[in-house]
Amino acid sequence: MAQPASAAPMPYGAPITLDLARKILAAAEAEAIALGWPMVIAIVDTGSHLKLLQRMDNAQIGSVQVAQRKAETAAGFRRSTKVFEEMLVAGGAGLKMLSVADVCMLEGGLPIVKDGQIIGGIGVSGMASHQDAQVAVAGLAAIK
Amino acid sequence: MAQPASAAPMPYGAPITLDLARKILAAAEAEAIALGWPMVIAIVDTGSHLKLLQRMDNAQIGSVQVAQRKAETAAGFRRSTKVFEEMLVAGGAGLKMLSVADVCMLEGGLPIVKDGQIIGGIGVSGMASHQDAQVAVAGLAAIK
Amino acid sequence: MAQPASAAPMPYGAPITLDLARKILAAAEAEAIALGWPMVIAIVDTGSHLKLLQRMDNAQIGSVQVAQRKAETAAGFRRSTKVFEEMLVAGGAGLKMLSVADVCMLEGGLPIVKDGQIIGGIGVSGMASHQDAQVAVAGLAAIK
Amino acid sequence: MAQPASAAPMPYGAPITLDLARKILAAAEAEAIALGWPMVIAIVDTGSHLKLLQRMDNAQIGSVQVAQRKAETAAGFRRSTKVFEEMLVAGGAGLKMLSVADVCMLEGGLPIVKDGQIIGGIGVSGMASHQDAQVAVAGLAAIK
Repeated sequence: MAQPASAAPMPYGAPITLDLARKILAAAEAEAIALGWPMVIAIVDTGSHLKLLQRMDNAQIGSVQVAQRKAETAAGFRRSTKVFEEMLVAGGAGLKMLSVADVCMLEGGLPIVKDGQIIGGIGVSGMASHQDAQVAVAGLAAIK
Repeated sequence: MAQPASAAPMPYGAPITLDLARKILAAAEAEAIALGWPMVIAIVDTGSHLKLLQRMDNAQIGSVQVAQRKAETAAGFRRSTKVFEEMLVAGGAGLKMLSVADVCMLEGGLPIVKDGQIIGGIGVSGMASHQDAQVAVAGLAAIK
Repeated sequence: MAQPASAAPMPYGAPITLDLARKILAAAEAEAIALGWPMVIAIVDTGSHLKLLQRMDNAQIGSVQVAQRKAETAAGFRRSTKVFEEMLVAGGAGLKMLSVADVCMLEGGLPIVKDGQIIGGIGVSGMASHQDAQVAVAGLAAIK
Repeated sequence: MAQPASAAPMPYGAPITLDLARKILAAAEAEAIALGWPMVIAIVDTGSHLKLLQRMDNAQIGSVQVAQRKAETAAGFRRSTKVFEEMLVAGGAGLKMLSVADVCMLEGGLPIVKDGQIIGGIGVSGMASHQDAQVAVAGLAAIK
């Protein structure tokens, strides 16, 4: 589980508030609407429990689970799910992550950070995973 | 599964839109806030898939699953989850429902009906189940 | 889910520290040893994730899951699992709780409270459930 | 499952005692503290059932499952989980191990051996997997 060897992991803070979760969701949704992408957007707290989930009209139902699992993975492992996707692309030892049941290895999940602490995770699903990630990034920009 | 023998069950319509789900959620949340009750409110479509889920600050994490399952049961079986709770109270043959894994038998789940068709379900959890039901009813009033 | 109708639920606080979890475990274990009871003792945080779990020599392996689920239920629903056991004993409507997958209805799970906030849960299993509860109570006495 | 054809596998002995599990955990934890690494350390017995699990403050919640599964794999298959990680690196037929649901293929799980017999397994998670393994090795040194 690739933490840079020299870095102490970022600590968990207090769980995300509903107010903050709404701001992130609204910003992510605005990006998705602007691009015409039907998405599921999920936000979890520090315990990886759902705080807010929204499925836009015409978003595929399979994305409900995917968005949720991306958010859980980002919060539970304190990193972008892109890290796991890249491990698979690189092949070799990275394939080991396929043996961890609770890890979703699709780009589009990001930890939510505030004041240097992890307060939750966002997961987006519905389009190609790099597009999902673009929407997640747009969401997080709302609290920068 | 007690449908009156003579009645044709209410048909499923088109799945609930996000716009409508938001109106229901907002009305349910307003009731919960007015009463000081921290709640999880879940809305699913005709396929029992999450459309919108919100956990208010200080709502218990165990209620995430309960609210979702109430909504799924209400949509999946086209009736209030209170019907199942009453079957248990009556005892006898009604206890058989405990053998159905996907049925949540706690009051607080209601089908969402529009123009005589079922378009989804709402589930609420966080307080006593009759209070949960009160909040669900307040939500549905928004689209009457 | 029987919160007294008039009471606002106790809020979640910061998740339990390892130091505090150890004190609780040590006190619970001392009680179990004094009584000659082989127990599994599990402590979870506010997100119902394991912080500390210990199986004493000769404790039954089935109790690993039971202790963990008691602790998860106590933290996730902010109450003693005895409440759920009593609902079953009373029969009738209380049987509805059997339809909630994440609820363990055996006495022996308690929320961990500090300064008026819930910081986690303890679950004990290995003997009769009232004995399990006695050990859990002894654990919590360490941080009173 | 590559046991050398000529070797009889190491036999299982009596399951690890709590006393021994504590010594291993303490040594592993001391190593983790010295390095500033927040870890989850799990120890299972010969039946792959949890004997002791500890999550250090600020260890990621996702590591609870990973540490436990590493320990289960090491005990259940009587070898280091590194063996499985190396099978993936080698590619080809070794990829078949991805189809075994109960095998965790991340370094950091080791069988616990005493007097030529397997008495349990240790699994560590929280940093990069070679760092996890370093902590597991430090734990086992306590009973050499």
